[in-house]
Amino acid sequence: MEQHTIAVLVNDHPGVLTRVANLFSQRGCNINSITVGASEEPGLSRMIITSGGDDQRIDQLMKQLNKLIDVISVTLLSKDPMVTRELALIKVDAGPAQRAEINGIVEPFRASVVDIGPTSLIIQATGDIDKIDALLALLEPYGIRELTRTGLMAMARSVVDQPSYM
Amino acid sequence: MEQHTIAVLVNDHPGVLTRVANLFSQRGCNINSITVGASEEPGLSRMIITSGGDDQRIDQLMKQLNKLIDVISVTLLSKDPMVTRELALIKVDAGPAQRAEINGIVEPFRASVVDIGPTSLIIQATGDIDKIDALLALLEPYGIRELTRTGLMAMARSVVDQPSYM
Repeated sequence: MEQHTIAVLVNDHPGVLTRVANLFSQRGCNINSITVGASEEPGLSRMIITSGGDDQRIDQLMKQLNKLIDVISVTLLSKDPMVTRELALIKVDAGPAQRAEINGIVEPFRASVVDIGPTSLIIQATGDIDKIDALLALLEPYGIRELTRTGLMAMARSVVDQPSYM
Repeated sequence: MEQHTIAVLVNDHPGVLTRVANLFSQRGCNINSITVGASEEPGLSRMIITSGGDDQRIDQLMKQLNKLIDVISVTLLSKDPMVTRELALIKVDAGPAQRAEINGIVEPFRASVVDIGPTSLIIQATGDIDKIDALLALLEPYGIRELTRTGLMAMARSVVDQPSYM
């Protein structure tokens, strides 16, 4: 099933997340990941939602999202070139003896160690999903105690805003 | 009003986000930001939610979250030391003449330019919220065309798991 990435600009009001999530549920579309954070406009938040489903169903869903209270605009990012990134925090089993070795793995990924405890450390990694998966595969043998990922973040590439230059 | 950070480990099933969002709405608690992504356990996702509200109300809310179908565990991260991070994608107005100048701003923040168009570029920045706010303040004069932030990501510091070492 194809994965779609949708940006929804909303008023930062209580209840808007509930309305958006309800709409997906009612339409039988699963939200695979969602981030909700500040946007360029004070008082407006931008949701980045990934969801499966065929094109027609997503098309209908977007029309209905547009009609919801507090929804300003809905954009299907995945139909055009986009930058995608994800942030992960990874807590890995590691005592003093493993730290240098793990640093050697982390550096080429431009990730960084952001916390050290006696028997574990926390790595922060930002990249596309494949990069984070590759890093996780290398860290797996040490033991991954805890993993939190933001889910996909995305933005239309700069050329998308400027079709006359394409 | 105090800001609370809650981690909710859930089964990756359709409808769980709706139930969680509904519960916050019903209790009159606004979700300020939320990220939902993969966890260390296949089939389980971890939500990181920030919300205002007094301690007593958050305490009740957490008890009710725990009773929801598909909720595995609920943790109040903000009661202990935690690592907090946010990922931002920032589209800034910039032609060829501004690129070098903007690179000079981006580097000390360990942020990076991830896309360049004829009249704009996209910057990826990861850090705590203050760091991202500071970077945004420096980029503001160029014109911020688009901004998407994940909302707060958080993880308990390594010492929290190991109270015997504290």
